[in-house]
Amino acid sequence: MPTAPPSVRIGVLGASGYTGAELLRLLLRHPAAQIRVLTAERQAGKPMAEIFPHLAPFDLPTPVKIEAVDWSQLDFVFCALPHGTTQEVIARLPHGLKVVDLSADFRLHDTAVYAEWYGHEHQAPELQPQAVYGLTELNRLGVRKARLVANPGCYPTAAMLPLIPLLLDNLIEPGGIIIDAKSGVSGAGRDAKQANLFPEISEGINAYGVGHHRHMPEMEQELRLAAGRPVSLSFTPHLVPMNRGELVTTYVRLADGVTADDLRQALEQKYRNEPFVKVVPAGVAPATRHVRGSNHCHIGVFADRPVRSAIVISAIDNLVKGASGQAIQNMNVMLGLAETTGLEQVALFP
Amino acid sequence: MPTAPPSVRIGVLGASGYTGAELLRLLLRHPAAQIRVLTAERQAGKPMAEIFPHLAPFDLPTPVKIEAVDWSQLDFVFCALPHGTTQEVIARLPHGLKVVDLSADFRLHDTAVYAEWYGHEHQAPELQPQAVYGLTELNRLGVRKARLVANPGCYPTAAMLPLIPLLLDNLIEPGGIIIDAKSGVSGAGRDAKQANLFPEISEGINAYGVGHHRHMPEMEQELRLAAGRPVSLSFTPHLVPMNRGELVTTYVRLADGVTADDLRQALEQKYRNEPFVKVVPAGVAPATRHVRGSNHCHIGVFADRPVRSAIVISAIDNLVKGASGQAIQNMNVMLGLAETTGLEQVALFP
Amino acid sequence: MPTAPPSVRIGVLGASGYTGAELLRLLLRHPAAQIRVLTAERQAGKPMAEIFPHLAPFDLPTPVKIEAVDWSQLDFVFCALPHGTTQEVIARLPHGLKVVDLSADFRLHDTAVYAEWYGHEHQAPELQPQAVYGLTELNRLGVRKARLVANPGCYPTAAMLPLIPLLLDNLIEPGGIIIDAKSGVSGAGRDAKQANLFPEISEGINAYGVGHHRHMPEMEQELRLAAGRPVSLSFTPHLVPMNRGELVTTYVRLADGVTADDLRQALEQKYRNEPFVKVVPAGVAPATRHVRGSNHCHIGVFADRPVRSAIVISAIDNLVKGASGQAIQNMNVMLGLAETTGLEQVALFP
Amino acid sequence: MPTAPPSVRIGVLGASGYTGAELLRLLLRHPAAQIRVLTAERQAGKPMAEIFPHLAPFDLPTPVKIEAVDWSQLDFVFCALPHGTTQEVIARLPHGLKVVDLSADFRLHDTAVYAEWYGHEHQAPELQPQAVYGLTELNRLGVRKARLVANPGCYPTAAMLPLIPLLLDNLIEPGGIIIDAKSGVSGAGRDAKQANLFPEISEGINAYGVGHHRHMPEMEQELRLAAGRPVSLSFTPHLVPMNRGELVTTYVRLADGVTADDLRQALEQKYRNEPFVKVVPAGVAPATRHVRGSNHCHIGVFADRPVRSAIVISAIDNLVKGASGQAIQNMNVMLGLAETTGLEQVALFP
Repeated sequence: MPTAPPSVRIGVLGASGYTGAELLRLLLRHPAAQIRVLTAERQAGKPMAEIFPHLAPFDLPTPVKIEAVDWSQLDFVFCALPHGTTQEVIARLPHGLKVVDLSADFRLHDTAVYAEWYGHEHQAPELQPQAVYGLTELNRLGVRKARLVANPGCYPTAAMLPLIPLLLDNLIEPGGIIIDAKSGVSGAGRDAKQANLFPEISEGINAYGVGHHRHMPEMEQELRLAAGRPVSLSFTPHLVPMNRGELVTTYVRLADGVTADDLRQALEQKYRNEPFVKVVPAGVAPATRHVRGSNHCHIGVFADRPVRSAIVISAIDNLVKGASGQAIQNMNVMLGLAETTGLEQVALFP
Repeated sequence: MPTAPPSVRIGVLGASGYTGAELLRLLLRHPAAQIRVLTAERQAGKPMAEIFPHLAPFDLPTPVKIEAVDWSQLDFVFCALPHGTTQEVIARLPHGLKVVDLSADFRLHDTAVYAEWYGHEHQAPELQPQAVYGLTELNRLGVRKARLVANPGCYPTAAMLPLIPLLLDNLIEPGGIIIDAKSGVSGAGRDAKQANLFPEISEGINAYGVGHHRHMPEMEQELRLAAGRPVSLSFTPHLVPMNRGELVTTYVRLADGVTADDLRQALEQKYRNEPFVKVVPAGVAPATRHVRGSNHCHIGVFADRPVRSAIVISAIDNLVKGASGQAIQNMNVMLGLAETTGLEQVALFP
Repeated sequence: MPTAPPSVRIGVLGASGYTGAELLRLLLRHPAAQIRVLTAERQAGKPMAEIFPHLAPFDLPTPVKIEAVDWSQLDFVFCALPHGTTQEVIARLPHGLKVVDLSADFRLHDTAVYAEWYGHEHQAPELQPQAVYGLTELNRLGVRKARLVANPGCYPTAAMLPLIPLLLDNLIEPGGIIIDAKSGVSGAGRDAKQANLFPEISEGINAYGVGHHRHMPEMEQELRLAAGRPVSLSFTPHLVPMNRGELVTTYVRLADGVTADDLRQALEQKYRNEPFVKVVPAGVAPATRHVRGSNHCHIGVFADRPVRSAIVISAIDNLVKGASGQAIQNMNVMLGLAETTGLEQVALFP
Repeated sequence: MPTAPPSVRIGVLGASGYTGAELLRLLLRHPAAQIRVLTAERQAGKPMAEIFPHLAPFDLPTPVKIEAVDWSQLDFVFCALPHGTTQEVIARLPHGLKVVDLSADFRLHDTAVYAEWYGHEHQAPELQPQAVYGLTELNRLGVRKARLVANPGCYPTAAMLPLIPLLLDNLIEPGGIIIDAKSGVSGAGRDAKQANLFPEISEGINAYGVGHHRHMPEMEQELRLAAGRPVSLSFTPHLVPMNRGELVTTYVRLADGVTADDLRQALEQKYRNEPFVKVVPAGVAPATRHVRGSNHCHIGVFADRPVRSAIVISAIDNLVKGASGQAIQNMNVMLGLAETTGLEQVALFP
């Protein structure tokens, strides 16, 4: 019988949002995790049982404002704050404290690109070079040594788990990659917005952020690294009337002499021993409902009708592998714990 | 005050399916329509109020089997039968009877292509040349003279309303067209199938028919006609947890010197006077919920990040403009009625 | 052929909410309605095509603030303002202007009861006696003569269409009436509230306002009038993950010697000639999906297991018969138009 | 550190249905469970990864037909077969094999009542007296000694967790109990039925089985036992457009001198140390979404408007506490394992 893992004193900054709640759902069953501190802004002081009644059966700290946190009580911090506010908070943390940041603040290495897409100068540019991009399966060594991990966006996670290995192996062309993505609504957060009311979402689908979604530079950066040269990328996200789940349909051009079956075999080979990435058999279309609530990514590959083209479909739960699950996976790696610790939930279907 | 339109004695073959019910919803408010005959197979003899309780407030004929129909009582027939069985039924109709066929049976002009995609020889090849493809806005003259109109598939309708004018005007290239489509579940019909149970659909999304959906040859045929040469087409449909609605996201390559704004202006020009096709303003993303229950198609155009590329998004209600509404629109044209007669419903939102 | 009805110049106060939009959906197809003025507060000046894109195909006035309305341009006003603000607005209207008020402000005749449930004194008590409670089928004569009609709440409409006739005929006891109601989310309005976000509603059900929902005094008032003595009433509403629809399951005690079949027959007799109320056959359970988008109410009656008890189930669309449809029905009666004018939509299923 | 529990070799009969899949989801994370045998009828021989793709990441036996099972390989059997077929299967099992039966076959002790409600004679009446009704919290001692546990129905579980203690303590009257229940669609099973297609369920609600649902005799039996005399019960289930979840709204009459607060305190007292039953604070309405995927039951109590009446609301996940979770809870008790083993999932919200 294995020894119990050492305990880790954890803080979750931004515990009143959906990714915060999802971190708690998973950490409550993580054998090494001690949830010591939660923060919230407007809801500071309110018991978690009121903020998230599904957590009522559990003993959880009442959220405090960030200013009130005694950092010396913590070994590890998850930062689930809104984009933009994060960088100042992290810049002020004790240097020994390890962090996974779920926001976009440290995903872009290039200060100018950050400023272009986010409309303001970065507030902690000195930390940007330190930050490691935490697409765990593809950057495990980097994550292991990191103090600050930038947790990937949900769309980039689903899209790049298949794309990066295919680009690295020169099996697809870096040009003409078209990413048509579909997400559940929890990705839009818990803030009260008319556009996300039930009657505005239910029984309908629409694209949003067409041509200018902020996950695009993140993918351009990482895919360029994999390809060794710039990639040409089209990315269009859609909003689907479901709580969780993200399906990414990617249209790629095959390198000379390569077939769709070659892609599938390469991905199978790459991910054979990965606990969280599964290449589904030929002819099977991944579905988000089969990864709901789990940290899995399902990947399918199909030949397309036009010559030298293929379709790659990947499915994740945007709140788990697309956010909080991958964040904990990164924590496990950073702390030398078994990577699957606390992440072995079976998908909830139906 | 306008004169009442002359009355038309109508038969609906296949009244127990969703497109049959939708024909009835619309025809019950069509001032010229007299619904005289309904047919059903397994449910023949059962009152419509039991088959479709939402129609209970209305006087409707009880469905009979097709063999029992006295065709001399009818002026017009809508054929909403399953693909494959339709062709034999239509071949036996009196030659003077006008027909809109909602199945795929007469959409393909090429007997060999039909046999390739449907797996059997066509049973009424002599009627294939007569059949007119009824994408109304783009073939009004053909429809006007037709005796037999092949009503387009839902995906082809949404995809080709923008694509055909753009190809005709040489504004986009015929190669590299990628159609990523998303549909509600009513398109899958009312037959009891495990895959379409509520728990199998709700809270999830998946692609289906990847690389081999039967709407593909229909689009290849019509787009080739518009382009004057073969087109290269990728088409992937997805199933969305909603009853109605179809969103088609199409990635196109711009012809030399053409911009996305040019596409939008060309489509605005083309559809300026069309009652059912609306090009939405720049920056607005069409949403299926805004055409729910109506015969409208909303079209949006966006510049894409890669050079010389654009994104065209179109939204319809798959049961209305994608099926029964367009069928009645075609009937109106075939009979010389005002084209919008009976089709002026405002979309039902929320 | 009937003569066209005379035209009515209409103002809709509060056009940016769901009941306002639903009024417009229906009025756009009402042959006598001229939509002349729309009002909104925060969204005044914004085109309706932006506020409600499903109305984009239609020419509609841009909303103005209430202060800017020239009342002399109007023959009729629908007031779809929030509860509480309505009474001051209506008090200031020209006395000749006929009004249907969709808020709760004029539903309660008793000033003290109003103050108890709404927490403040009524601002226009002099109008309260004038206001006629507009449950059309049961108060047609009153509505016909009214200048100001208080349109019933959605729950009271569905609950009382069966209950009032049964109490009037002494077929059920006035004690022990239990009303368990289930509503779609559009009833909660279009204001941005966290509790009504898609992820907070989807895939779940809960009761709300248990023991103190504001529709209760309205039902107590009207049922007491029908029974001729106080009634004992329990009312619990629930929130269901759907846009539209309201199902009311009412548990009643039968008067001595009365059976559930007697109830059904009495209701059939009562509503035989009513265009919008349908008593479904024995054994059939009404479903909200069969009245979606229509002004119909379906009523079913069942014997219950305990002696002398029955279950009455009624289904409406909360935005149509439960709000805007009934409001237009009342307008038709007030103006001497055919009662069904503009309300003949067939339910949208699926 | 606790010793690992001894391993139990388990068979799941009926692994192709939703309750079967849910047993597997939970057993895959149960530290003592070895899933040795699965059965299915029509899908025997098909890998579980095809029957339930969400289970694809796990090694599971391929289902066989029941006739092919070597019972000597098993220590414990879950029987998730359709009602009616179960009794013959269980009658043929080796006598030493412990069983939790999730069907209704052994819930009724009275052979005559069974025959009345199920329309045929029971096929294993000799086993009926042996079967223990497994509402775990209320019959723990019985379950501990049982060889055959009849797992309660989902509605009875949610309804009786509050009702039985209240009747035992004479806090409510045995007459006039009205149970208005609302369930997600997974309770209807995975068989292909038109009535359960997505478009037939989505965006609507309806009652079903009004006055004659088969869970009624089960509740009458158990509540009579608790009350010590016959109870008068009304029970009406409704179908809600959601996958999982069951909300039961129960209207009760208070015993003389008792208040709603007394009920709440009695239930808090009763369930204080129960891991899976939580009485929520006054004023809070339980919601199914807060127990989704977990074995918890949330109970709320409210004073009602009529004198001496109260409303009790309970929420469970119909597939977990209402079926497979409670079945495993019963197994744990039968085998002397810690009762929460394998059942500590946090609810999945949103």
